Amino acid sequence: MTDKRPAAVLDWRLKGMPADCEEIGADALADAGWHVLREDLMLPAAVLRESAMRHNSEWMRKFTQLSGARIAPHGKTTMSPDLFAMQMADGAWGLTAATIGHVRTYRKHGIGTILLANQLIGRQNIAYVVAELRRDPEFDFYCLVDSAASVDLLEAALAADPPGRPLQVLIELGFPGGRTGFRDNDAALAVARRIAASPLLSLRGVEAFEGVFQGTPAESRDPQVRALLDRVVGLADACSDEQLFTGRPIITAGGSSLFDMVAETFAAAAVERPYTVILRSGCYLVHDSHFYKQLVEGLIRRSPVAASLGDGLRGALEVWAYVHSRPEETRLVAGLGKRDIADDVAPPTVLGWARPGPDAEMLPIPADHRVVRLDDQHAYLDIPADSPLQPGDMVAFGVSHPCTTFDKWQALYLVDDGLRVTGAIRTFF
Amino acid sequence: MTDKRPAAVLDWRLKGMPADCEEIGADALADAGWHVLREDLMLPAAVLRESAMRHNSEWMRKFTQLSGARIAPHGKTTMSPDLFAMQMADGAWGLTAATIGHVRTYRKHGIGTILLANQLIGRQNIAYVVAELRRDPEFDFYCLVDSAASVDLLEAALAADPPGRPLQVLIELGFPGGRTGFRDNDAALAVARRIAASPLLSLRGVEAFEGVFQGTPAESRDPQVRALLDRVVGLADACSDEQLFTGRPIITAGGSSLFDMVAETFAAAAVERPYTVILRSGCYLVHDSHFYKQLVEGLIRRSPVAASLGDGLRGALEVWAYVHSRPEETRLVAGLGKRDIADDVAPPTVLGWARPGPDAEMLPIPADHRVVRLDDQHAYLDIPADSPLQPGDMVAFGVSHPCTTFDKWQALYLVDDGLRVTGAIRTFF
Repeated sequence: MTDKRPAAVLDWRLKGMPADCEEIGADALADAGWHVLREDLMLPAAVLRESAMRHNSEWMRKFTQLSGARIAPHGKTTMSPDLFAMQMADGAWGLTAATIGHVRTYRKHGIGTILLANQLIGRQNIAYVVAELRRDPEFDFYCLVDSAASVDLLEAALAADPPGRPLQVLIELGFPGGRTGFRDNDAALAVARRIAASPLLSLRGVEAFEGVFQGTPAESRDPQVRALLDRVVGLADACSDEQLFTGRPIITAGGSSLFDMVAETFAAAAVERPYTVILRSGCYLVHDSHFYKQLVEGLIRRSPVAASLGDGLRGALEVWAYVHSRPEETRLVAGLGKRDIADDVAPPTVLGWARPGPDAEMLPIPADHRVVRLDDQHAYLDIPADSPLQPGDMVAFGVSHPCTTFDKWQALYLVDDGLRVTGAIRTFF
Repeated sequence: MTDKRPAAVLDWRLKGMPADCEEIGADALADAGWHVLREDLMLPAAVLRESAMRHNSEWMRKFTQLSGARIAPHGKTTMSPDLFAMQMADGAWGLTAATIGHVRTYRKHGIGTILLANQLIGRQNIAYVVAELRRDPEFDFYCLVDSAASVDLLEAALAADPPGRPLQVLIELGFPGGRTGFRDNDAALAVARRIAASPLLSLRGVEAFEGVFQGTPAESRDPQVRALLDRVVGLADACSDEQLFTGRPIITAGGSSLFDMVAETFAAAAVERPYTVILRSGCYLVHDSHFYKQLVEGLIRRSPVAASLGDGLRGALEVWAYVHSRPEETRLVAGLGKRDIADDVAPPTVLGWARPGPDAEMLPIPADHRVVRLDDQHAYLDIPADSPLQPGDMVAFGVSHPCTTFDKWQALYLVDDGLRVTGAIRTFF
């Protein structure tokens, strides 16, 4: 890790901490000699493979460089200032946030440029941003607007408690049946004109989130994604023609699976006009073992730029747990559950296993070992009758959604490729 | 709250904290004058109605008293020492845990009697228990065993690192297709004999978890539950006949929805033999607004003891969030998501709403406002075209699974019936 901030302190409150360790500095872990396969962590424990994260960070650095885009990684995925430091060091434009809680954490950890990819709504949320804009003239903050009603709310709040400079906003576009965002560009343009005329607001760009489509089959998904991105460019062009923007306009979209289309469409638009293109992928750094894995494999097949980078993204995140019971020949119960690993997109996958002992090593696990149910603290697996697994064995689980796995861990352990613990990161959920 | 421990400190890291509050003691909140309807919390925020929790705690105290059972509330639901203190003060026998992480948190907060309703597996997990048994001769700890293999693992670990007294274990019974636990009583009895003969272990009772059935329709569920409970009694009687138990045997089962059947069956058995009957419900204290609400309504219809208590359990937990957008007449997007509220059993319900302003009050919300999807940080609602809701309004969401809502909050705010903040509790996930 390239982070130079004071090292985090880990204590007994954190899942994974060894029985006899009450407190340790994360910077002491490289020398502590802890090893997953020697059972030095109290399982369940979540680990991050450093080599995979370094590879992924470098992959995205090259991808954005080659495609003419910048990235404001969505910090919500990991909410880990330790990882933000790596992302900023690798050239991120800023960080994306979903809530003012996120913004507050970013600010406490020195992030200067923040894109709130959300409406800014509510007394305390607005008050925090206003106070922070006033406190730090360098704070470069952006948020979204998707209705005249929210312009009314922002103007009323800013008039009552002025931050001393206009609030930078982007118009958000959406699509029928989708999440937030204007359904049609004419209504959006009308509000853009109002923002441009407001002394309290400045219009800085246009935004959309194509990721809402990511679960849809590609044949129907891709045309809808491209249509949405084209609408972003269309609105940005219209606002440019009317000189509604302040400064160099931003066009931004991009979740973790379709960002190639965003980069392609927006970079083409930026050849014609001076747009700053911002992607907002959050998952690329830690990636996963199933959902985004499949989606990014599709992205690499689709995108010549991504294909030119060789190896794709690697899954960095594993949750290790013990086999507790094999109460039937073909049923295994392991000691991790909904409190430890995501189950919202697909069940965890099984990456490998190890039998504790002096020669413990991580062994491959046949694909016919499947997680079929999670309770709060237990996983049910269907296994073949000839499976070697038995109580006390350790199993590594891969995730299908990093965001809803990360938020179950206040600390994750960094490991090398041999599963030796080399450090740890803290999260702020 | 009756808790006399030092008050928790809340700081900016916690969701809900007002914009200008960096740190405050939970004991200062009653005088701070914060009010949900005055937008003093930074939404989203989770609140607990104190009156509902007091009612629920008293309800369970009476239920167990009338039914001849004790309760070891499952602490995993809330993982809040502040609430544990209330439960212990109301006469709990001890606390139930699912992981050694839970046990560690309970021990740090002075809990003396702990039932690990799980196998004790793995080097660090066993090491923690052994060290704690050695450190505190008063520590009264129990765990489950459901295989000869796990007896082997425990005996090897205890022989290598003796705690100085036998480890108290309960035999766990399960059922075909279920979670952990012996599928048949003969195999269980054979292991019970082995435990009774071991100098390292002592056999203290028999356990099952009937809650695995709770999603099943009542007609097929109830006979299966009763059969499992009868098997617990049958095995306990067999072990008693062979004098395999040390001390007064414990028979225990009971999640949060079928504990009336447990109390009934086990109390009848305890008339014949000197069993201690332990229920393990975790959700009763905060309850919910949908899943357990329906199940406990069924319980009250079924159980004369529960029906005799008058008012049933009340939902104490609400998550408040703002309306961010109404991008279509019948689509609302609110500022809370999978990171804030459970979505694993059923979507959140909508309990009420308020329009901020000097006269803000919580208004009922028609049932045709429905959460149809959660993203990580957004909720999608279908609403009628004539709904009054607009951006900036506040909405209270009820939960369908307290366990997977609580673990999304490191602090929850206590409120009175008028939504004034009276305190806060911390959680340890």
